[in-house]
Amino acid sequence: MKDKSGQRKSLGKVVALCGGVGGAKLALGLYRVLPPDDLVLCVNTGDDFEHLGLHVSPDLDTVLYTLAGLNNPETGWGRRDETWTFMRALEALGGETWFRLGDGDLATHLERTRRLRSGESLTAVTRDFARRLRIRADLLPMTDDPVRTLVETPEGVMPFQRYFVARRCEPAVLRLRFDGAEPAQPSPVVIAALRSPELAVVVICPSNPYLSVDPILALPALRTALADCAAPVVAISPLIGGQAVKGPTAKIMAELAVPQTQASIARHYDGLIDGLVIDRTDRQDAAALPVPARITRTLMNSLDDREALAREVLDFGASLGDRATARQV
Amino acid sequence: MKDKSGQRKSLGKVVALCGGVGGAKLALGLYRVLPPDDLVLCVNTGDDFEHLGLHVSPDLDTVLYTLAGLNNPETGWGRRDETWTFMRALEALGGETWFRLGDGDLATHLERTRRLRSGESLTAVTRDFARRLRIRADLLPMTDDPVRTLVETPEGVMPFQRYFVARRCEPAVLRLRFDGAEPAQPSPVVIAALRSPELAVVVICPSNPYLSVDPILALPALRTALADCAAPVVAISPLIGGQAVKGPTAKIMAELAVPQTQASIARHYDGLIDGLVIDRTDRQDAAALPVPARITRTLMNSLDDREALAREVLDFGASLGDRATARQV
Repeated sequence: MKDKSGQRKSLGKVVALCGGVGGAKLALGLYRVLPPDDLVLCVNTGDDFEHLGLHVSPDLDTVLYTLAGLNNPETGWGRRDETWTFMRALEALGGETWFRLGDGDLATHLERTRRLRSGESLTAVTRDFARRLRIRADLLPMTDDPVRTLVETPEGVMPFQRYFVARRCEPAVLRLRFDGAEPAQPSPVVIAALRSPELAVVVICPSNPYLSVDPILALPALRTALADCAAPVVAISPLIGGQAVKGPTAKIMAELAVPQTQASIARHYDGLIDGLVIDRTDRQDAAALPVPARITRTLMNSLDDREALAREVLDFGASLGDRATARQV
Repeated sequence: MKDKSGQRKSLGKVVALCGGVGGAKLALGLYRVLPPDDLVLCVNTGDDFEHLGLHVSPDLDTVLYTLAGLNNPETGWGRRDETWTFMRALEALGGETWFRLGDGDLATHLERTRRLRSGESLTAVTRDFARRLRIRADLLPMTDDPVRTLVETPEGVMPFQRYFVARRCEPAVLRLRFDGAEPAQPSPVVIAALRSPELAVVVICPSNPYLSVDPILALPALRTALADCAAPVVAISPLIGGQAVKGPTAKIMAELAVPQTQASIARHYDGLIDGLVIDRTDRQDAAALPVPARITRTLMNSLDDREALAREVLDFGASLGDRATARQV
């Protein structure tokens, strides 16, 4: 937020939980309207997987590239000005090509893998990459421990990327599991921020609640810290008119027999959120929500959209006041 | 060699020992003039090293790319139509960039590394790559065991790639060591070919004798099989007028206080070769050689040059007859 001199005004710390594409859009909006040092980004690593011997962190990379201005705006994933020489050569050698790795993107995976093998933590590598790409927000994996999203389908249990990329989300989702979440230690930086007296608001980005946010919330200590934190927690619904802007949120809700409504999203975050931001299209749903709603435009096509939504979210959070206060009322 | 109908005529098996660029040029010539199934290529792996977590085999790849028509004719190493997006991205992340890996080249290293880690041998991976790139010659690493060329210099012992690439061969060579060569098992396919009654000739390509051929000859069982084989062994000198076409052969000879002459090359292969192919420039040196010489043009600029030299070498080998016969004379 800018004051009259055009300086971005500090509200205190802002923690945002986010997944990939949708989350990264709002993360960029927040990054641009806040003093950059105020933003702590806690990113899903449930989609991480080993591929071709490399540690791939799709959501971390999407946020990294987006904040560094390196993202591919057409695809929503990967890098701009990417080349694909590697994939063509790999195909000629009979390598696995179902997961597309661009030539520039490969540098991230290779260098991360090398540093992880040399004993650095995912947190240390991620922060250093962000620093080198001149990102001043604190970009953090939700944990340094392995958590793996598994999708239970009628065809059996699938690792996330097999479901998401190889099978294009076609199999019905019966249940989602986050292997390793129970014993995993969440990022101590995120926990400290959630407990900080400087915390102004926690933002749950409009990422897929089931695939991208739930792995974060599956970390017991993080969920507890979120439930206990003094600042308001605000989620932005990924649904607009019962549909997701991108990705399988609505499809998964149908498969899980959850109505594709804003009330379902609010209930999904029951006990954790103090307010839900919904799109104008769904203004009639506001009254049925168990938490206060902020009605605005949630579709983020342009950079202005991202910044405008970020401002709305921060303003909404500020309007909710302290949770302690809110709950006493 | 072609008969009157234009078919390539089989002479029997031809084993060629070779290193990188110079070796690959003649290997291509041999591949083009021989029935492709007759050629067994035994390639130096002393230059192999681990880089960015990948198993890189520079000489194997140079031969692979050359025979597949994928080599970069300008640089002599790497692939044609290469892109460098990976290196630029790696540099931005603070990764090591002293060893240049092209985007297409990376596919070879990544896929090889993945398959080696899954338990396949370097031989199996190399043969499969060659097959997929439609190479019909038998392309083989000299061994599946780790052999590492180390360069003793006044600055200390350097791994080969540090000396060769990072330091551009500047430090003086005091001695070369091939760590792991003593216990290494040479390729059983190469050994079998050397012992085969179908063996027509063994060719020591005009690679650097010290850096590229000596690691192969440092494998005790291979050296013995070479010394004992029934067919003639012919080396092609890498020197023309006391200089190497490319690379530090002459510089290393000077540093090791070896005269930069054809006689030195012949003596270097003493007890192993039955003939030496030298360039016309050095015709006056032929008389001083301890083995028969074939005087021809050894410079290989064009594809025709490669094929012509290959024919000369094969003809020279045939003219020498069986070693047993030759030694009885």
